[in-house]
Parts: sequence; structure tokens; C-alpha cells
Amino acid sequence: MALSARNQLPGTIKDIQIGDIMAHVVVKVGSNLIESVITRNSAEELGLKKGDKVRVVVKSTEVMIQKD
Amino acid sequence: MALSARNQLPGTIKDIQIGDIMAHVVVKVGSNLIESVITRNSAEELGLKKGDKVRVVVKSTEVMIQKD
Amino acid sequence: MALSARNQLPGTIKDIQIGDIMAHVVVKVGSNLIESVITRNSAEELGLKKGDKVRVVVKSTEVMIQKD
Amino acid sequence: MALSARNQLPGTIKDIQIGDIMAHVVVKVGSNLIESVITRNSAEELGLKKGDKVRVVVKSTEVMIQKD
Amino acid sequence: MALSARNQLPGTIKDIQIGDIMAHVVVKVGSNLIESVITRNSAEELGLKKGDKVRVVVKSTEVMIQKD
Amino acid sequence: MALSARNQLPGTIKDIQIGDIMAHVVVKVGSNLIESVITRNSAEELGLKKGDKVRVVVKSTEVMIQKD
Repeated sequence: MALSARNQLPGTIKDIQIGDIMAHVVVKVGSNLIESVITRNSAEELGLKKGDKVRVVVKSTEVMIQKD
Repeated sequence: MALSARNQLPGTIKDIQIGDIMAHVVVKVGSNLIESVITRNSAEELGLKKGDKVRVVVKSTEVMIQKD
Repeated sequence: MALSARNQLPGTIKDIQIGDIMAHVVVKVGSNLIESVITRNSAEELGLKKGDKVRVVVKSTEVMIQKD
Repeated sequence: MALSARNQLPGTIKDIQIGDIMAHVVVKVGSNLIESVITRNSAEELGLKKGDKVRVVVKSTEVMIQKD
Repeated sequence: MALSARNQLPGTIKDIQIGDIMAHVVVKVGSNLIESVITRNSAEELGLKKGDKVRVVVKSTEVMIQKD
Repeated sequence: MALSARNQLPGTIKDIQIGDIMAHVVVKVGSNLIESVITRNSAEELGLKKGDKVRVVVKSTEVMIQKD
């Protein structure tokens, strides 16, 4: 099963907050923290919890570049 | 100057391809490659080229979670 | 392997056009056509072609509602 | 009034949950359920409720392809 | 016909470039220029050209805030 | 510090609502109101409040065109 999204980075869930409709998930990827907002339903159906090994997935058209 | 986007990861441009309207940029972030599609105009105005130190920026609502 | 994206709809590729950076894919899902724009690299690495059975995947935060 | 978004699929609202800021809407489109997250303000101003005939609208750059 | 997208701003097309898959549209909105990337197919089917009165439409989840 | 996002429009915060996970921000840009949904964390870390001078930032791939 292969997804067209170019960015699929392995990491570990460091924190998760469940709200009424949305959930906020923080994933450690290498030395960076990547934050994700998904639906509460998805977080619950995937059973996401601190310490889970996951991948963060981002479509390349959603990635911007900043030059310092 | 602070941007609300939660994900702003430092990296180095490894490859860039310029198309008619869009440009494809590959950035090394830690041990991962992150791919970005931006406009040709942005790539040219920022003068992006291989070796540039940049940040990849992603709004957290664009980040999905995959559980293996 | 389970992805947080709520929308994962089975269909069949009806048409694909490859551009310099991006590719345009048309998928028949039930009686609807769903159109997708992904990178040329993804289209080529997945070997997408007419007739392929695929799923179209959309994060729910990207879906709008129109009331007639 | 014509919108550039390529995907505008007719359906019927099956479920709606209103949160503090966001609302979660589930729409039956053919034999599929499509889920949408919009603002609470939009859900209330459109007066969305179970049974409403609506269209789900998605920009093609937001659609990924998964090959099984 | 009412769309959930909160941002629907009236303007005038100042420039349009058609590429192989995508098109780049520049719209004057008040004293600002707003740039849009849509599919070539949409640009052609809508018959977009310089001087057209249009609306730029953006889902609120796609809008970031920057504080200087 | 230059960001690839083509749309960076100056304005003033007219209203802000903080929810459990997300925040809703309304910004006056010229004679238009632009609405943004960001994380509660971002709204709090940026210290956003009514009257703040900000920029609304939108990637051009997120902008649709509607022709009346």
C-alpha cells in the first residue's frame, strides 16, 4: 500500500490532547518536534497514545520554504 | 516576525527542479528528506539553490498521522 | 498501516496527464470523477496508469460543504 | 457562479457534530461517507443539519492517491 | 448556493499564466495582489482572462497568522 | 527571513475566539475580513489579541477562483 504523499517520516508520539472535535498530536521526528491536528475520531480510532511509533505524513504541496 | 505555523524545521536544499509554473524542492532535515512544491515565482524570488540553508514550514492542520 | 485521513475512497484511474513537475489524475469513484494533482515523481514511482485500482485520500480539514 | 475546485460531489448530510470552534460533518456521497471539518460559524450560518442535500467540495491539489 | 469557505473576496484578474498542468492567477483584491494556483483545466473551463471579475476563495484552516 | 507563501497581507485582528484545541481569528485586511483557524497553542504563544497588527499568510496552492 503506497501513498502519493512524498513526506512520510517515522517518529514517536510525545504528547496528545483530545478536544471536542479535533486532537493535537506532537511527534518527535529525529531531533525535531512535528505537530499535527487531526480529528478526534481519527485519534480515537487509531488509538493514538504517548510512546506510539507512527509516521507523520505531509503532501508536498503543503510544504513551504523559508530562507533566513 | 513569528508565524503561527507550528512546524518550522531547519535543513539544507539537496535538489531543486524548476517547471513552468511550479518548482520542486528537496530539503535534508536531520536524516530525512522533505519535499516541497512551491511556485516557480517563489523559488526564483528567493533565489533557491542547492546547498541553501532553509526552513521547511508546514501548518499543523496539514499533517496526518499513520500508525503502522 | 492506518492513516488518520478520514476519506479513503476506492476507485479506478480514468485518465492521467504527466507534466514537468505535477501530474493530473482522474479517478472514477462510484458514479463521480475525482481529480487529483500530485507530483510527477509520485505518479512515476507509483507507476500510475489508466485502469489502476487506487484509493483517493483526502484529509477532512480539506473538505468544504456547499449548500445549494 | 462557478468555482475552480474540480471536485464538487452531491450528497446528503448523515451526521453533524458542533464543537467550540470547529464542526464535523459526515456526508453520504454515492455509497461512500465523506467527512468534512469546517468552522462552527460556517455550519451555523449555512444551517447545516441531518438530511440536507449538499455538495462536498475539494480542491484537486488536496487529493492524494494510494495504490494498494 | 453558499459555500462553507469563510473567505470569498471580490477582485479583478491582473495576470494569468497557463502551464502544462497548473495555472497561476494573480488577482487584485483591494490594494493587495492575491496569487492562486489552480489546474489548467479549471482555468480553461472558467475561461479566466485578464480583467475578469472573480472571487478568491480560501478555507479558513488554510490561513496562517504572522505577528511582526 | 523570507517565506515562499505568495500571499502575506497586512491587517488588524478584529476578533479572536480560543477553543480547546483550535482558535478562530478574524483579521481586517483593507475593507475585507479574513478568517483564520490556527492552533490554540499558536494563538497563545503569539499572544494574539484584538487590535494586533498582523499579516495573514496563505500558500497560493490553497487559493481557489470563483467566477460569478
